[in-house]
Amino acid sequence: VLPIAVDGMGGDHAPHSAVAGAVLAAEAGLPIVLVGDPDALSRAASDAGQTLEGIDVVAASEVIAMDEDPGFGVRRKKDASMVRAAELVRDGHASAMVGAGNTGATMASALLRMGRLRGIKRPAIAALIPEASGARHSVLLDAGANADCTPQLLAQFARMGAVYARVRLGIAEPTVGVLNIGEEAGKGNSLVRETVELLSDTRWQSEVWAIFAGNAEGGDIMTTQVDVIVTDGFTGNVALKSMEGACASISTAAKALLEAAGVDWSADAGLSALWRRLDPDENGGAVLLGVDGVCVICHGASEPRGILGAIQVASELVELGIVGAISAAMAPEDV
Amino acid sequence: VLPIAVDGMGGDHAPHSAVAGAVLAAEAGLPIVLVGDPDALSRAASDAGQTLEGIDVVAASEVIAMDEDPGFGVRRKKDASMVRAAELVRDGHASAMVGAGNTGATMASALLRMGRLRGIKRPAIAALIPEASGARHSVLLDAGANADCTPQLLAQFARMGAVYARVRLGIAEPTVGVLNIGEEAGKGNSLVRETVELLSDTRWQSEVWAIFAGNAEGGDIMTTQVDVIVTDGFTGNVALKSMEGACASISTAAKALLEAAGVDWSADAGLSALWRRLDPDENGGAVLLGVDGVCVICHGASEPRGILGAIQVASELVELGIVGAISAAMAPEDV
Repeated sequence: VLPIAVDGMGGDHAPHSAVAGAVLAAEAGLPIVLVGDPDALSRAASDAGQTLEGIDVVAASEVIAMDEDPGFGVRRKKDASMVRAAELVRDGHASAMVGAGNTGATMASALLRMGRLRGIKRPAIAALIPEASGARHSVLLDAGANADCTPQLLAQFARMGAVYARVRLGIAEPTVGVLNIGEEAGKGNSLVRETVELLSDTRWQSEVWAIFAGNAEGGDIMTTQVDVIVTDGFTGNVALKSMEGACASISTAAKALLEAAGVDWSADAGLSALWRRLDPDENGGAVLLGVDGVCVICHGASEPRGILGAIQVASELVELGIVGAISAAMAPEDV
Repeated sequence: VLPIAVDGMGGDHAPHSAVAGAVLAAEAGLPIVLVGDPDALSRAASDAGQTLEGIDVVAASEVIAMDEDPGFGVRRKKDASMVRAAELVRDGHASAMVGAGNTGATMASALLRMGRLRGIKRPAIAALIPEASGARHSVLLDAGANADCTPQLLAQFARMGAVYARVRLGIAEPTVGVLNIGEEAGKGNSLVRETVELLSDTRWQSEVWAIFAGNAEGGDIMTTQVDVIVTDGFTGNVALKSMEGACASISTAAKALLEAAGVDWSADAGLSALWRRLDPDENGGAVLLGVDGVCVICHGASEPRGILGAIQVASELVELGIVGAISAAMAPEDV
């Protein structure tokens, strides 16, 4: 089995979180190749009382900072850790890449080094959103890769999202909705109205075994109303961050109140599980769909278990053959 | 004091919720004029064991349904309850209008009958978002009036939002951010980038005593990071609904878990207050800014206390002189 390439230098807590997450994954039996400055990586491991034994290290001398311009960073820093991680996938030395660094630069590294799948106009970020009960998830895409979109791009995201829901979540005939500001036909901005028109065509639905469900609203994202919610990367990212913000602020307030009332919420398995479900670190990162390889992008603030979760997701997606499945689901005329 | 005109026929639970809310407001000493089918309104009152004593009723023979096309409805149904309510404000017979009916048609009634304030290009919906602690609020606008926006519109929303934060929330120098998908300059879609450029101009800031804070993210909406968050009506509505959905789904799950753990959350003042703060019925409706009169729009699903809250907000905004304050804050070249 090919190892998973982990960007050792990316994230707010780099290299410590990335290294500790990689060590956890290696301990769980997953083959890992850590990319970055070998000295910094070993120091991070020994700081945590760990060693990099059993983990391959590939040297990369440069780091793209969290606030650096993505395009500029990737063009100029050819020996950046995330660029090298993407090259390992491209060259068949790794099965997938995982990174918590600058999101735009991680995407750009994957896009420029692995390349797009044939027929894909633009890759999109798919995020898995837990329903509050935790029993089911929905897929939101694009969660931030493309700030400006066309209806044609959104129609392609619908195909990719349907395939992702089937492969990752095991939903045989996923329902697909377009994120809008009302459920009635004719609502929304011009982008959404034209997208709904395109997606109402039944051909794509039968080609990818999806069911187009029309408009979905922001309030449907954390429910099981539809399996896949399609939107442009600007709106999707705002929705995702808004929900994360709401979850964080409520769970913080509720925990404080429970503690004040003498309730030990951490001793309650259900409540602890609820708060964990709302924690971005537990969601296994977001996946860049449409590139020729598996690329999982974590929150910059990821803790080691967030990195571990993302590595597990990457490994699962490789086994499930997500790249081939998406490639096979593109419209014949696009390929 | 002029009465507040309440659309008696609007909302999912019309006329019952609207009538019961109006009765609560009248009992609290607020002068009310209910607009709608007099028979239906009295029946709703007597169904609830109430009377309309002390409440003026203005007859309107038509109703615009929740799913009716707003523009078409307002143009065709000249005797619709919400249209008549807006006319009462226009003609000086009411100080404000409140409605839980079809949002688009309520806005259109206010816009077409009251008219825009001089210099206002498009009215916007301002929603008050509670921080989880409940101690402070932020203003989100546009929360749904204008699905397609230009940078010039967003710049005007920034002025209106700053005035609203000062008048309603008492913040002397409100900070204003633009909703974006990253905090760094240069991020976002073309609409946002151009808006940031316009708002970086210091003149408008000194004219309305606002401080431009640059980009804000979805996660900042439920915090006190900035006082006013400006966005187009599509993104704003998606963010609002996404947060409401997240709050509803978490509080439902948390309540069930607390009950299973034997905790009586309803007996805990802090927890009850937390859930209430997250309840749209408690937020007093959204306000349409930029029209020549006060117009408060409630959730279609509003219960009587939601209608009461909106009437109280309307009354408060009339007293605070919000319409005059917004009118005075427009750019000299627009007026």
